Amino acid sequence: MEKMTIYADNAATTRTSEAAIKAMLPFMTEVYGNPSSLHSAGQRAKEALESARARVAAVLGCETREVYFTSGGSESDNQALISAARIGGRKGKKHIVSTAIEHHAVLHTLDALKKEGFEVTLVGVGENGIVTSGAIDAAIREDTCLVSVMYANNEIGTIQPIAEIGALCRARGVLFHTDAVQAVGQLHINVAEQNIDMLSLSAHKFHGPKGVGALYVKKGVPLTNVINGGAQERGKRAGTENLPAIAGMAAALEEAAANMDSNAAKARALRDRLIAGLSRIPHSALNGDAEKRLPGNVSFCFEGIEGESLLLLLDDAGICASSGSACTSGSLDPSHVILAIGRPHEIAHGSLRLTINAENTEEEIDYMIENVADVVARLRGMSPVWRKLMNGESSFVLA
Amino acid sequence: MEKMTIYADNAATTRTSEAAIKAMLPFMTEVYGNPSSLHSAGQRAKEALESARARVAAVLGCETREVYFTSGGSESDNQALISAARIGGRKGKKHIVSTAIEHHAVLHTLDALKKEGFEVTLVGVGENGIVTSGAIDAAIREDTCLVSVMYANNEIGTIQPIAEIGALCRARGVLFHTDAVQAVGQLHINVAEQNIDMLSLSAHKFHGPKGVGALYVKKGVPLTNVINGGAQERGKRAGTENLPAIAGMAAALEEAAANMDSNAAKARALRDRLIAGLSRIPHSALNGDAEKRLPGNVSFCFEGIEGESLLLLLDDAGICASSGSACTSGSLDPSHVILAIGRPHEIAHGSLRLTINAENTEEEIDYMIENVADVVARLRGMSPVWRKLMNGESSFVLA
Repeated sequence: MEKMTIYADNAATTRTSEAAIKAMLPFMTEVYGNPSSLHSAGQRAKEALESARARVAAVLGCETREVYFTSGGSESDNQALISAARIGGRKGKKHIVSTAIEHHAVLHTLDALKKEGFEVTLVGVGENGIVTSGAIDAAIREDTCLVSVMYANNEIGTIQPIAEIGALCRARGVLFHTDAVQAVGQLHINVAEQNIDMLSLSAHKFHGPKGVGALYVKKGVPLTNVINGGAQERGKRAGTENLPAIAGMAAALEEAAANMDSNAAKARALRDRLIAGLSRIPHSALNGDAEKRLPGNVSFCFEGIEGESLLLLLDDAGICASSGSACTSGSLDPSHVILAIGRPHEIAHGSLRLTINAENTEEEIDYMIENVADVVARLRGMSPVWRKLMNGESSFVLA
Repeated sequence: MEKMTIYADNAATTRTSEAAIKAMLPFMTEVYGNPSSLHSAGQRAKEALESARARVAAVLGCETREVYFTSGGSESDNQALISAARIGGRKGKKHIVSTAIEHHAVLHTLDALKKEGFEVTLVGVGENGIVTSGAIDAAIREDTCLVSVMYANNEIGTIQPIAEIGALCRARGVLFHTDAVQAVGQLHINVAEQNIDMLSLSAHKFHGPKGVGALYVKKGVPLTNVINGGAQERGKRAGTENLPAIAGMAAALEEAAANMDSNAAKARALRDRLIAGLSRIPHSALNGDAEKRLPGNVSFCFEGIEGESLLLLLDDAGICASSGSACTSGSLDPSHVILAIGRPHEIAHGSLRLTINAENTEEEIDYMIENVADVVARLRGMSPVWRKLMNGESSFVLA
């Protein structure tokens, strides 16, 4: 088979689309004024800023003034959690409910809040990688000020029952935040219908530019600044507005929304072909629910191998893949997400994430299946762990 | 005189240079991998990221690992101050020295720290808009954990005695931060020679992209995260690295550094021509020192008029100007900087900032002089305040 080059790490970041770049450039060279300036160059920038805000709001199903621009998903997550904590703190409510499979932007912000005296309950997920609204309900207490549940997981792609949790939180009078960084642009979201109070998104996950994101905040929920300074974003996020990137984000989001159903159908078909192919590798297992997962997410564990070696050999074969999330690479610990779905440590070490999209082809999928199978076989051939399994000195975990 | 269109608000933001855009584009469409990804697409991005860091460090005169990338000047200021406060807090040192003319990114972060029990001394400046190292020395106490003095003021352009203050802080064992957002790219800076421990910069002030900046931190000074999450930036700033913007910033900074002396000489000549012309308007005054100011900064007060009307009429004449800083526009309060140099409220309201650069022409300068003189005369003709002054019912403040 001739060598191909395949980017299969779209959950880490995506190529910036032509539409996004085209939307950005005029705000670098022509309408480059500061949106906070009173002169016409500034006011033209301000109009473009508010137009972008309205377009992002339209896709999310909220009001324009409920959208705040930030530097990305991590900042949005930080601000949402800190804001909810401040609101709770003023009422003596210092308990937060979240899940064991959140992104580190949520988990580490919760760690910081714990040092301030907040109590955090991380609800577990089932083997399918999905949290139930019943488990969230059971974790909510009288002093709970926030429930934060990610919309779709960044490693295993599982989609959480956000509308159910939203309805529950509304009924129990608790603020509800969702880290929707992996979901926006891929799934239909309507924050009003789904009773979401705060939602984080990041442009570079849906072919928008890096370094820009947004935080939707339901009106009436007071934000706390993460960045203090000028009065930008209605006083809630200081710093000259990054209009080129914001315009690029709005363009990318509209493009993703317009093509969502057809792109999802194409990606799902490719995803399921890839899952079927990889499932034929002995002693392997799909991570996370087979149906309730992002259209482009494929996550597997392979018994008896190390994920890092797998990545490096796949890279040699021209395939850009990931073991877990880009944000935790370099760490030797197995993924907290793979552990949370019940995989033992030694299995969690052999995980592989391939995140594709509608632009991939069946040929690329078949190339990936063949190469993953080859590389897994090669690594097993060198693995002392595998030898023990084959000799019957230890037992297989995966069928 | 034929109508011209002149952008004279470069202190608010600048046009993104062709070199910066050219540096950004490949990282949007070709090398778009996540620098934290292990595969080759990620590693190529990582190499570009570290190359950009080395190039920024070279211009600042520090080590590569002393540069942290952020979303801009405001975030850098926030992180510098919060980090110093945490270091101080651990030692029971909860006093900070700064000045009355800082940017709001510093002042409002200090306000937030005050709520946590920190004490802040804001040292005043002379009529020339410059703080003395003697005044800083006098303000430092046993429990001072930080001195933060801006390198050059964003409204009146005055350059502060940073090397003197740096030497003083080093001698007294106090951390020294400078908000150099207005200075970087325009003035020669060497953080090692000037004994600077932390320095904030923002790319869009020197023809780089918006939404990106850096924080220089002397090695050994522990940073506190403003944004928690992934392990990017050695664990000190979470969020996928904004490589396109970072590469654009490095290119713009190198371009600014390479042309600094010739650009400054050209801008200074134009600036002084503009100052001379505006000084001929009766009852006007230059704000800030005539020599120790940024090459492109012109700031005036005109007696008997309102700055906002002045801006709007200049905008009609094609001139993009500012009354103070873009970050505080929309506020009806007079500038804290103009007040700090001793102008009374009624004079501070009639301020005008024109920030030019080497690309402006003498024709543009003369056009601005003529139009400012015309507009000031027109506004004075309609002003009840001016009528009283002319009737001798009140006294002129400005000669």
